[in-house]
Amino acid sequence: LRTGVPEVVFGSGKSEAQLERAVQGLADQGASVLVTKLSPGQGEALHALFPEGKVHPQAGLFTLGADLSLTPPWPEQGEALVLSAGASDLPVALEAYATAQYFGLTAGLVSDVGVAGLHRLLPHLQACDQARVLIVVAGMEGALPSVVAGLTDKPVIAVPTSVGYGVSFQGVTALLGMLSSCAPGVAVVNIDNGFGAAAMARKLCHLKP
Amino acid sequence: LRTGVPEVVFGSGKSEAQLERAVQGLADQGASVLVTKLSPGQGEALHALFPEGKVHPQAGLFTLGADLSLTPPWPEQGEALVLSAGASDLPVALEAYATAQYFGLTAGLVSDVGVAGLHRLLPHLQACDQARVLIVVAGMEGALPSVVAGLTDKPVIAVPTSVGYGVSFQGVTALLGMLSSCAPGVAVVNIDNGFGAAAMARKLCHLKP
Amino acid sequence: LRTGVPEVVFGSGKSEAQLERAVQGLADQGASVLVTKLSPGQGEALHALFPEGKVHPQAGLFTLGADLSLTPPWPEQGEALVLSAGASDLPVALEAYATAQYFGLTAGLVSDVGVAGLHRLLPHLQACDQARVLIVVAGMEGALPSVVAGLTDKPVIAVPTSVGYGVSFQGVTALLGMLSSCAPGVAVVNIDNGFGAAAMARKLCHLKP
Amino acid sequence: LRTGVPEVVFGSGKSEAQLERAVQGLADQGASVLVTKLSPGQGEALHALFPEGKVHPQAGLFTLGADLSLTPPWPEQGEALVLSAGASDLPVALEAYATAQYFGLTAGLVSDVGVAGLHRLLPHLQACDQARVLIVVAGMEGALPSVVAGLTDKPVIAVPTSVGYGVSFQGVTALLGMLSSCAPGVAVVNIDNGFGAAAMARKLCHLKP
Amino acid sequence: LRTGVPEVVFGSGKSEAQLERAVQGLADQGASVLVTKLSPGQGEALHALFPEGKVHPQAGLFTLGADLSLTPPWPEQGEALVLSAGASDLPVALEAYATAQYFGLTAGLVSDVGVAGLHRLLPHLQACDQARVLIVVAGMEGALPSVVAGLTDKPVIAVPTSVGYGVSFQGVTALLGMLSSCAPGVAVVNIDNGFGAAAMARKLCHLKP
Amino acid sequence: LRTGVPEVVFGSGKSEAQLERAVQGLADQGASVLVTKLSPGQGEALHALFPEGKVHPQAGLFTLGADLSLTPPWPEQGEALVLSAGASDLPVALEAYATAQYFGLTAGLVSDVGVAGLHRLLPHLQACDQARVLIVVAGMEGALPSVVAGLTDKPVIAVPTSVGYGVSFQGVTALLGMLSSCAPGVAVVNIDNGFGAAAMARKLCHLKP
Amino acid sequence: LRTGVPEVVFGSGKSEAQLERAVQGLADQGASVLVTKLSPGQGEALHALFPEGKVHPQAGLFTLGADLSLTPPWPEQGEALVLSAGASDLPVALEAYATAQYFGLTAGLVSDVGVAGLHRLLPHLQACDQARVLIVVAGMEGALPSVVAGLTDKPVIAVPTSVGYGVSFQGVTALLGMLSSCAPGVAVVNIDNGFGAAAMARKLCHLKP
Amino acid sequence: LRTGVPEVVFGSGKSEAQLERAVQGLADQGASVLVTKLSPGQGEALHALFPEGKVHPQAGLFTLGADLSLTPPWPEQGEALVLSAGASDLPVALEAYATAQYFGLTAGLVSDVGVAGLHRLLPHLQACDQARVLIVVAGMEGALPSVVAGLTDKPVIAVPTSVGYGVSFQGVTALLGMLSSCAPGVAVVNIDNGFGAAAMARKLCHLKP
Ligand SMILES: Nc1ncnc2c1ncn2[C@@H]1O[C@H](COP(=O)(O)O)[C@@H](O)[C@H]1O
Ligand SMILES: Nc1ncnc2c1ncn2[C@@H]1O[C@H](COP(=O)(O)O)[C@@H](O)[C@H]1O
Ligand SMILES: Nc1ncnc2c1ncn2[C@@H]1O[C@H](COP(=O)(O)O)[C@@H](O)[C@H]1O
Ligand SMILES: Nc1ncnc2c1ncn2[C@@H]1O[C@H](COP(=O)(O)O)[C@@H](O)[C@H]1O
Ligand SMILES: [Mg+2]
Ligand SMILES: [Mg+2]
Ligand SMILES: [Mg+2]
Ligand SMILES: [Mg+2]
Ligand SMILES: [Mg+2]
Ligand SMILES: [Mg+2]
Ligand SMILES: [Mg+2]
Ligand SMILES: [Mg+2]
Repeated sequence: LRTGVPEVVFGSGKSEAQLERAVQGLADQGASVLVTKLSPGQGEALHALFPEGKVHPQAGLFTLGADLSLTPPWPEQGEALVLSAGASDLPVALEAYATAQYFGLTAGLVSDVGVAGLHRLLPHLQACDQARVLIVVAGMEGALPSVVAGLTDKPVIAVPTSVGYGVSFQGVTALLGMLSSCAPGVAVVNIDNGFGAAAMARKLCHLKP
Repeated sequence: LRTGVPEVVFGSGKSEAQLERAVQGLADQGASVLVTKLSPGQGEALHALFPEGKVHPQAGLFTLGADLSLTPPWPEQGEALVLSAGASDLPVALEAYATAQYFGLTAGLVSDVGVAGLHRLLPHLQACDQARVLIVVAGMEGALPSVVAGLTDKPVIAVPTSVGYGVSFQGVTALLGMLSSCAPGVAVVNIDNGFGAAAMARKLCHLKP
Repeated sequence: LRTGVPEVVFGSGKSEAQLERAVQGLADQGASVLVTKLSPGQGEALHALFPEGKVHPQAGLFTLGADLSLTPPWPEQGEALVLSAGASDLPVALEAYATAQYFGLTAGLVSDVGVAGLHRLLPHLQACDQARVLIVVAGMEGALPSVVAGLTDKPVIAVPTSVGYGVSFQGVTALLGMLSSCAPGVAVVNIDNGFGAAAMARKLCHLKP
Repeated sequence: LRTGVPEVVFGSGKSEAQLERAVQGLADQGASVLVTKLSPGQGEALHALFPEGKVHPQAGLFTLGADLSLTPPWPEQGEALVLSAGASDLPVALEAYATAQYFGLTAGLVSDVGVAGLHRLLPHLQACDQARVLIVVAGMEGALPSVVAGLTDKPVIAVPTSVGYGVSFQGVTALLGMLSSCAPGVAVVNIDNGFGAAAMARKLCHLKP
Repeated sequence: LRTGVPEVVFGSGKSEAQLERAVQGLADQGASVLVTKLSPGQGEALHALFPEGKVHPQAGLFTLGADLSLTPPWPEQGEALVLSAGASDLPVALEAYATAQYFGLTAGLVSDVGVAGLHRLLPHLQACDQARVLIVVAGMEGALPSVVAGLTDKPVIAVPTSVGYGVSFQGVTALLGMLSSCAPGVAVVNIDNGFGAAAMARKLCHLKP
Repeated sequence: LRTGVPEVVFGSGKSEAQLERAVQGLADQGASVLVTKLSPGQGEALHALFPEGKVHPQAGLFTLGADLSLTPPWPEQGEALVLSAGASDLPVALEAYATAQYFGLTAGLVSDVGVAGLHRLLPHLQACDQARVLIVVAGMEGALPSVVAGLTDKPVIAVPTSVGYGVSFQGVTALLGMLSSCAPGVAVVNIDNGFGAAAMARKLCHLKP
Repeated sequence: LRTGVPEVVFGSGKSEAQLERAVQGLADQGASVLVTKLSPGQGEALHALFPEGKVHPQAGLFTLGADLSLTPPWPEQGEALVLSAGASDLPVALEAYATAQYFGLTAGLVSDVGVAGLHRLLPHLQACDQARVLIVVAGMEGALPSVVAGLTDKPVIAVPTSVGYGVSFQGVTALLGMLSSCAPGVAVVNIDNGFGAAAMARKLCHLKP
Repeated sequence: LRTGVPEVVFGSGKSEAQLERAVQGLADQGASVLVTKLSPGQGEALHALFPEGKVHPQAGLFTLGADLSLTPPWPEQGEALVLSAGASDLPVALEAYATAQYFGLTAGLVSDVGVAGLHRLLPHLQACDQARVLIVVAGMEGALPSVVAGLTDKPVIAVPTSVGYGVSFQGVTALLGMLSSCAPGVAVVNIDNGFGAAAMARKLCHLKP
């Protein structure tokens, strides 16, 4: 693996024919397959083409030859622990959670621990300390990564989401907030880029000791 | 008072002559005087003109016939309690704190309680519950008002500051974060507008029961 | 009530199943329910699920176990008085008006009093003076809060709306205008956030005397 | 006059040599001269070169062979009536007022009639109705042109100024507000462009009946 | 007429019921009616309700009791002469042209005279000189008003359109270009605001000589 | 020459020591030297270090071992013909003109032919047709490249300048206008990048026939 | 050909009737026809009207009387060589490739050589050196033109595409990256403007030697 | 260490008194001290106060009780390897390099390996493979992190710098390019935030195996 990360198909905007070719190509090499950012229609089309595969509609994912479980209750700890601020951030959190598993990491997922209700976050701090890397997903003001990074010594990969309205500006406000964070040990990926956070987590967890 | 708020002179960009005229005008009416947003040079010029007045350089303020104390230690509670995230937010926090006093409110000021170190905020929650209104001042990601509003039932007036660098964008990121807050009971004033927060606090505290 | 404000369901983007779960959950606790930012389709779906509830399509609201009247003529005074600039701002004004009622405030609503026709605003100044807090809703140039704050001593919660075209920029121009206001005693919430204005109003009106 | 407007020198950023050449060139043609947007240093340099000319430092202007009076009290009516919102908008208002005179219009100037204090505007409505064109200068939220256009049947040329701080964004907020105006009969020129407003006024007043 | 301009109904986003009420209201006062910014569906709905009215789909207009002709060939001169850069700018140009007629001005319309083909503009300069006011409509780089204002002594009301793609940014680039124009005697209205340009033209043409 | 373009030193922000090292390095290789974007102070420092070199202050350039003439009158034709809209665009135009010469092209320069005075441009069209490539420099609304590209069959390299104020936004408006141009055969370089335009011209003129 | 480039019809947003008129007009003059930026529906409509023409749906093109081949495998060299970063950039790359052919240039197309996999680019450097001009198409971070311009002495016309999500901002990020390129000999056209790049290439290749 | 990262003093904007207090405070606890983002004047002031400390002016750093070597030649490998695109990015690269050392990591620094000259980067790929984490610093188009992440399996922490002019927008273009990167395993910190990259590197290198 030149880049240290297995190939993943980016589904958004691809035609049915393009998706089929990409999935078949990887399957022909004997690889398992993960496709991200699928619309419901694309998911159904892939399922019709590859009935042995599995669609995860809420997360916009399709998998073939990879056995990922996305249904709750999710394990609340793991090497890569995903923390998600609000219910609407869940699709992106699930993309990160599933991709981390696909990359061979043990992963956990804790949802609905946004900064406006800190009492929901505190019981999970111990799991944070046992993780190797935290993926923190948040929309709107995107403050959760700052708060988490101030409470733990683990590296935080921050994922802004396009959740919100008005001045949330499709995730730009959350992104800028995360980059401006005054807590040390936070680095940021593109808006809604759960995949990218998991790829970074994979590279981190494979660091030579 | 038509607008419910005494006149305050906005100093920024005014010439010495303009400042003198404004201060003298109010003094002639027997009013006490508060001038905001003064540069060090403007402050000294006013002091030379009105030696009985007082300059507060860190806060960019000048007062005449008003006895405001801005030197620490500040009282840590009051009708209007000012919470400030970082050391660099202090000038704006002091502007709010001084203006609130000038408007006749009892005011408190708690500094350096940013979201990257929540353990510093928690001891002050009781004072929050005893205040009538909270003025929360923060730069960078501007997350403090959200966190505070999630921990108390008091109204929060959020003041973004122009503190930070890079994508802090002179306070725009903090402003957008505050407006996107998912905690109920937060309303926002212009960047660095400590005066405006105090004016709102004054109107709130004078609400008829 | 930790935050001083009862729970309200944010409907935008939620699936029918998510909405049902949220409403049922609150109903099971014996609480009345308010859902905001509903599309027409979501509103109908909720009504089919909870036929004893009520949909307010223009305001994008659904209520269950709460008896709100949104049909005109609206009372033109109240503890929380909503002033609305143009006919197209009405959905947001109604969201604020309904939520304020839901929060137990007496509320009034005056529509179509934009700054391009000041003669329509002036007859309502007395009601402004009798209110405890004003919620001022405006799109386009968003000038109404400034004008109102200059004519009364009541605190003004300004709500920019996404009404307009061209450089109205979906409410950003109105928002910036409101934040730049030179009238003291104006604080601002997110674009189209009628709910947030009502939550702030609730906190203000419950201030200890 | 090809464009219907006499030549005016734009001083900003020009070297002393460039300014001298431009002024001398017009003087050599027997024309009177107006130079705009001068820094204090540039103004003094021009005065040293052309001692018979006159510098107007607050307005950033230099004139030669043109007898303009800019000192208050200003006439409060004229063909072209300039209305200015705040004290800090005065330099731009004076640029418009002086240029209009230079272009041969009778001009008036009314200052400090911003929307946060409408009672100061109302006494001037009659002068508005007697003018042929109104030049309305405002910074911050830039609401004055909307309000004025709703109170008169005269065309309004709106001039946003770079006055303000925070989200005033050096006049952009005022500009966007003016363009979004819901009052008919408002057209807008560039930020701080008092000259441009006067040029438009000159073209309007020279319209064939 | 308080504002000097007859009432025009802004159709965009209005429901069928709201449109009917607005049109009926004006018709009941014996006024003729103009409705702007109509979608095709809204236009058909109005026509079904008021079969004696007329829909102009390309311009998004509906008229009742007003006899406007919008079909080409258009007269190429008039008191108010509309110049339009490209074929795609025609809807906005027609809105201005129709509204000017509705306001009682004689109007002309010249299309497809953009700056990339100056030879098409030059034959119309004489008509420009005979007009009282020019309304110049352009999208993309929005350069036409500058060029025209440099070739004539008539006032130019510039209307940016949302035509274009990529960095045309829905008319923002054209708007900024028009405001930055170095030609004197250009003032600008909101993007796509043909109505606003005609309203300004009406006020200009009714100037007392 | 790997990239087909000789090395040029980018002076902006470099310390005296860094500049000396860069110039000495190239001189030691026997190359002639061009340094761009120099402040007056940097220029003087370089001249003190290399008295046989030459400073061109208006253009912000320093040359050593290269005999460039930048003083007017400039030749009004050349392989690479630079057209410049306004007097304030001259520094950037001179950077392009000098760099083109330094790269071995015959170059011409025509100044002050902006779109608000088309009669000044027309006499130069024949020289345009005799050039191989046109470099068109303009600030403010940046319309000149569009107009020129519509009048000739030569490729146009457009250079926006940071000249202007208000919504000129330091060249952004000119840049966006140039990119939105509806005339074919225009490509654009960064704001104020006269060097980049000349580098492109050099590559074009060295195209194999 | 006044501008040196044959007429091409811009299809986007045109009605069926407008498209028919444009195509028929050119066909009547005996010219071949190219229409760009067509939606699938527009393409089918044109094909129904002109069955002897050909639709290229992936590229959004329609041709009549011009024999262009767009089906892979594409020649990997040509006078104008198009390099495309990712699979999703292909529509824009094909627009450039087809238009270049239509303009009479020999054209090549190499796809999927983005900067994250440089080993795919290197085998094509020889073809770059044999081309006369390179058209480099890339979305997301838009880095490919910089890298290519650093590896060859050919002029690079950079075309940003609207491919990507989050902070790709519909091509703006790619555009800004290309303009900021530190490699000499890159000039840029509007986002998704494959046509414009081909028009520039045509003008370059027709330069007199 | 609660956050896993030793305290570092942020110098920017602090007064001499504030700096002295901060440094003395840490020294009194027996800690070594690092102060970042110092202006030359601040650096000299600190040196006068603490003559045993050391100022690194190019990097804007001050250290006390920490023995950091910043003078070239730098080691070209290390646990944390800093790669820097251009000479002007060096201050930020040095901040990262020094802070990493201060945090106890072995660090390397390779400068001047920007994407416009790939041949300079390739010799360093082996050192990349031997590092544990790469810190990639680049301004302008910010493409270096993408290219590097495509050539190695190490995690890349990308640091945009404010280097450049025109549309480099003080680092915003580089930042957006880095976030849009299509190479997996890149995460980004704030503009010019060398400190933040080193803090993230420290957390990564301390990951439990
Ligand atoms: N720091 C401040 N920010 C915003 N407004 C202020 C500030 N200080 C004073 N003001 C307001 O500015 C107005 C006075 O402006 P001026 O007449 O220019 O002194 C008053 O309405 C004050 O309420
Ligand atoms: N196309 C338009 N753009 C901007 N304003 C318009 C337009 N058409 C009508 N108006 C104005 O909108 C107001 C009517 O708004 P409404 O009461 O919502 O119909 C009137 O003041 C008209 O002058
Ligand atoms: N004015 C300029 N604008 C942009 N790039 C320039 C400029 N002058 C020189 N360069 C380029 O900057 C690079 C030299 O940068 P440096 O090594 O910092 O001197 C060379 O590749 C030049 O081609
Ligand atoms: N260059 C820098 N950029 C961002 N944060 C920094 C920098 N240097 C130090 N810090 C952080 O700023 C905080 C110290 O801020 P202060 O108390 O104002 O000195 C600490 O948390 C540091 O980790
Ligand atoms: Mg959040
Ligand atoms: Mg903060
Ligand atoms: Mg309004
Ligand atoms: Mg104002
Ligand atoms: Mg145009
Ligand atoms: Mg220009
Ligand atoms: Mg790319
Ligand atoms: Mg770079």
